[in-house]
Amino acid sequence: MDTSRFVIIGGVAAGPKAAAKLTRLAPDADVTIIEKGVFLSYAGCGLPYYVSGVVEDQEDLMSTPAGSVRDEVFFLNVKNVHVHNRTLATEIDREGRRVNVRSLENGAEDWIPYDRLILATGAEPVDPPLPGGDLENVVRLHGVEDAERMRALLAEHRAPDVVIIGGGLIGVEITEALVSTGCRVTIVERLPQLLAPLDEEMARQVATHMKAKGVKVLTGTTVVAIEPDDEDDARVGKVRTSAGTLPADMVVVSVGVRPNVELARDCGLEIGETGAILVDDHLRTTDPDIFAVGDCAESVNLVTGRPAYVPLGSTANKQGRVAAINAAGGDDTFPGILGTSICRVFDFNVAATGLTEREARDLGYDIETALTPAPDKPHFMPTAKMLMLKTVSDRRTRRLLGMQAVGPGDAARATDVAAMALHAGMTMDQLSKTDLAYAPPYSPAMDNVITASDVVRNKMDGVAVGLPPSEVKRKMDAGEPVFLLDVRTLSEAAQLAIPGAVNIPLSQLRDRVDELPRDHEVICFCKISLRGYEAALIAAAAGCDAKFMDGGIVMWPYETVGF
Amino acid sequence: MDTSRFVIIGGVAAGPKAAAKLTRLAPDADVTIIEKGVFLSYAGCGLPYYVSGVVEDQEDLMSTPAGSVRDEVFFLNVKNVHVHNRTLATEIDREGRRVNVRSLENGAEDWIPYDRLILATGAEPVDPPLPGGDLENVVRLHGVEDAERMRALLAEHRAPDVVIIGGGLIGVEITEALVSTGCRVTIVERLPQLLAPLDEEMARQVATHMKAKGVKVLTGTTVVAIEPDDEDDARVGKVRTSAGTLPADMVVVSVGVRPNVELARDCGLEIGETGAILVDDHLRTTDPDIFAVGDCAESVNLVTGRPAYVPLGSTANKQGRVAAINAAGGDDTFPGILGTSICRVFDFNVAATGLTEREARDLGYDIETALTPAPDKPHFMPTAKMLMLKTVSDRRTRRLLGMQAVGPGDAARATDVAAMALHAGMTMDQLSKTDLAYAPPYSPAMDNVITASDVVRNKMDGVAVGLPPSEVKRKMDAGEPVFLLDVRTLSEAAQLAIPGAVNIPLSQLRDRVDELPRDHEVICFCKISLRGYEAALIAAAAGCDAKFMDGGIVMWPYETVGF
Repeated sequence: MDTSRFVIIGGVAAGPKAAAKLTRLAPDADVTIIEKGVFLSYAGCGLPYYVSGVVEDQEDLMSTPAGSVRDEVFFLNVKNVHVHNRTLATEIDREGRRVNVRSLENGAEDWIPYDRLILATGAEPVDPPLPGGDLENVVRLHGVEDAERMRALLAEHRAPDVVIIGGGLIGVEITEALVSTGCRVTIVERLPQLLAPLDEEMARQVATHMKAKGVKVLTGTTVVAIEPDDEDDARVGKVRTSAGTLPADMVVVSVGVRPNVELARDCGLEIGETGAILVDDHLRTTDPDIFAVGDCAESVNLVTGRPAYVPLGSTANKQGRVAAINAAGGDDTFPGILGTSICRVFDFNVAATGLTEREARDLGYDIETALTPAPDKPHFMPTAKMLMLKTVSDRRTRRLLGMQAVGPGDAARATDVAAMALHAGMTMDQLSKTDLAYAPPYSPAMDNVITASDVVRNKMDGVAVGLPPSEVKRKMDAGEPVFLLDVRTLSEAAQLAIPGAVNIPLSQLRDRVDELPRDHEVICFCKISLRGYEAALIAAAAGCDAKFMDGGIVMWPYETVGF
Repeated sequence: MDTSRFVIIGGVAAGPKAAAKLTRLAPDADVTIIEKGVFLSYAGCGLPYYVSGVVEDQEDLMSTPAGSVRDEVFFLNVKNVHVHNRTLATEIDREGRRVNVRSLENGAEDWIPYDRLILATGAEPVDPPLPGGDLENVVRLHGVEDAERMRALLAEHRAPDVVIIGGGLIGVEITEALVSTGCRVTIVERLPQLLAPLDEEMARQVATHMKAKGVKVLTGTTVVAIEPDDEDDARVGKVRTSAGTLPADMVVVSVGVRPNVELARDCGLEIGETGAILVDDHLRTTDPDIFAVGDCAESVNLVTGRPAYVPLGSTANKQGRVAAINAAGGDDTFPGILGTSICRVFDFNVAATGLTEREARDLGYDIETALTPAPDKPHFMPTAKMLMLKTVSDRRTRRLLGMQAVGPGDAARATDVAAMALHAGMTMDQLSKTDLAYAPPYSPAMDNVITASDVVRNKMDGVAVGLPPSEVKRKMDAGEPVFLLDVRTLSEAAQLAIPGAVNIPLSQLRDRVDELPRDHEVICFCKISLRGYEAALIAAAAGCDAKFMDGGIVMWPYETVGF
């Protein structure tokens, strides 16, 4: 069979990666990319940093590390790839193995024949059906053109009011970018929390940090309408929400993306249950000569084994390579994803991999969780920063199910370690013995992930009995008889306290254990609940019904009192 | 059986960790630590940072994150652990289950009974039999006392000449600390390279960086004698080496450590082939009531399955916990180590895990390696820094065997990912599909470890034919007919070049491929040899015997020409 003509639809991430790999594997092959936009192979994930000015030059997003701009000439001369940009693929004739294209410059139509076709058609931002969504200065952040529009707006206005609709990863990333350029930003999210990859108490930490940076965070809030400016009815002026009306010189709509599957659907390829193109582990669609990669393709969640759709540039690049190998007659697989994600939010690094507690419960797992805040380096190093981890594991298999990492500390490293543990199907017992790189400039002697593993193991083994802050709060709010014991030092407790807590420093607890009630629950905590755990053991040994509160006051997301 | 009396010999890292865990598991137990020094539970790994002044206060190294100094009172009040410091354990009576101790303050002797004994006797610096080794200002860096001596010396002298004998991890760490305080430092290493956890070409990158920071690096050099000062024959003045005599106001001896096994050996416990105390995977010695943990205990290398001795604070802490669980009647295992290590060397992060190429070859593996330098974030991010990886893998199983990471980039994260892959026994094919955390502030879309995996896979599959720089150099030095082709741009080549290389930019190569010789080897390179790899494919397709040079000019450790 002739496999010398490869056509790739989509020229942003997965497509060019596949094209480059194809020309390496088959130097004589005829490789063609069809791209509807002007720009090729640009770093879409870098757009927020172009908006903020961290990346100064648009060309930087489109150039190779050596500085060559990846334009049509580059692709032809360097990669031997023919590029048709500003060209729309309108129809796939599977029987005739050809793709109909139309030039967006002159309207000319043509059929391009293929032996193997790779769909890398990407995704589009979801456009919610909002009144006023087409007003001037209502933007999305999807392509280079969107970023240019935002930069132009920012250049015009001094300290504009911006409303961001949608508190997902992109909404949060662009919030930071806009605040850094001087905007007054309100972020509006329909759900009760920002950042769906996190559980509620972790997302609350991020929201608190954003508020401290001057962002107005409105969760559980729906946008009713985008409305024109009083002086110019073509231009946006305000956003009406269920929590009131907000002034808006600019509105960024970032409520998610949807895979571009029309071409695939129209030619009869099967669409998966997530709405993306169904592929097997070789990234083949239901037509063996057509592959799908990147943001238009469905994947598999490796923790659950279920279909998943998490469009990411990293996945797109890996998939482009796998599809190219298979299209060229080789044999490679893409087993699936974990849903690993990360973003920077001001001074916080925010990351997650695998399942949240919410997802794990919904799937019926019998889970154990732990909240473990700790410095990401030995506490004596001036570079040490707080890192808050949430660990979710399966009590039956003792396997890790997911981890979330939030804080100024090194969330990326912890999350990658957790992601590797998920890929390997490691138990918490295995994870807790891993030989991670240790020296004071990098990590504590007991790495944060290892401490997290040990806390989960203690809880699974019944050696430690912990309660999440949400449960402690519920008990207190319900008026249940709870003795909340703060075992930090007097000076720590004098700075910040939880209302209703009683302070007995751990060093005095053995002598003062008679002060604790025997007739109702004693819940111990300290800064991070390591001392809280020790206190619970001392209290339990003295006959109390004692537990510790997960994560200590550092991860208590509710009211505190400062003195 | 009565297991209520636990005695722990050694109070620095593994011992206190075991003690704390024991009192948590068995609150009524009688737990005693015997420690010969004054100081307890101090962060030995933090000593270089105390010498440099990064850590200002000695107490910081001995305190908990909440600021409590871990002294005898703290251990008793908080942990319910009895501590005998300044106390030497002199003999173990296994039959009588008791330990003889002698006070270093008043010479009083006593027998302390135990049901279970945990040896955490640590290690001592090796003292090479050098003339002059006992002169004043010849120091080691082992305990807090050593660090205090060094600080006192630094306070006395302005810009002193320091000679460091031994270029291992500690020697390199203390070099950085001393240079940062204004010392003129020479590091003398007997072996042909610094840092045994690295292969030669990676160690050479570190040495080059140290030289750029003003350090004199003498490898392959033996110290003949340490000699007194001309004016004060009690004090050190110079160091005589095989490469000449060096001035020395201070000498730091850091030629390695040796486990303290005398007590164990004297009472008949078996010593392993590495010279450390033999233990099983429960950390039991050959006496089932005696455990050994930390720097005195032998471990297992999980890649080779062979005995290993790599004393590290991280391992000590993990082992302390495992031994405590088992001593208290539980069941936990410590499967072994990978030899993961990391240190900071000025602006470089230097790390390794698993086997080096040298070790893998010695063990008879059929290996494939790759050198892959790349920015640790997308090249358009201003925070991107170069990270040079060396990957060693097994051609037969396609498994990762080891990884080394050197450069200003994030070596810790890459090394931890590699360590997790080693724990999981991952193949390069699996590693290349892992779902690591990606966003521009953290990593490139194709993570450095994934790129490394793909390069190794290409080489194993014969899709890419690479030569290490050492082999290219050997061919050139031997006068073999080699056409060294630099495919970078003209401006790149004008800044820095390899002598003898011919420049044809990649974008022109397809048109100028006739200029390449067909009668002898064409070796292509660029900055990092991604373009070099593409050039080799173009040249091969045109009939050349073409290969690419691993790692490009970035990892060429030999002579270059700047213009």
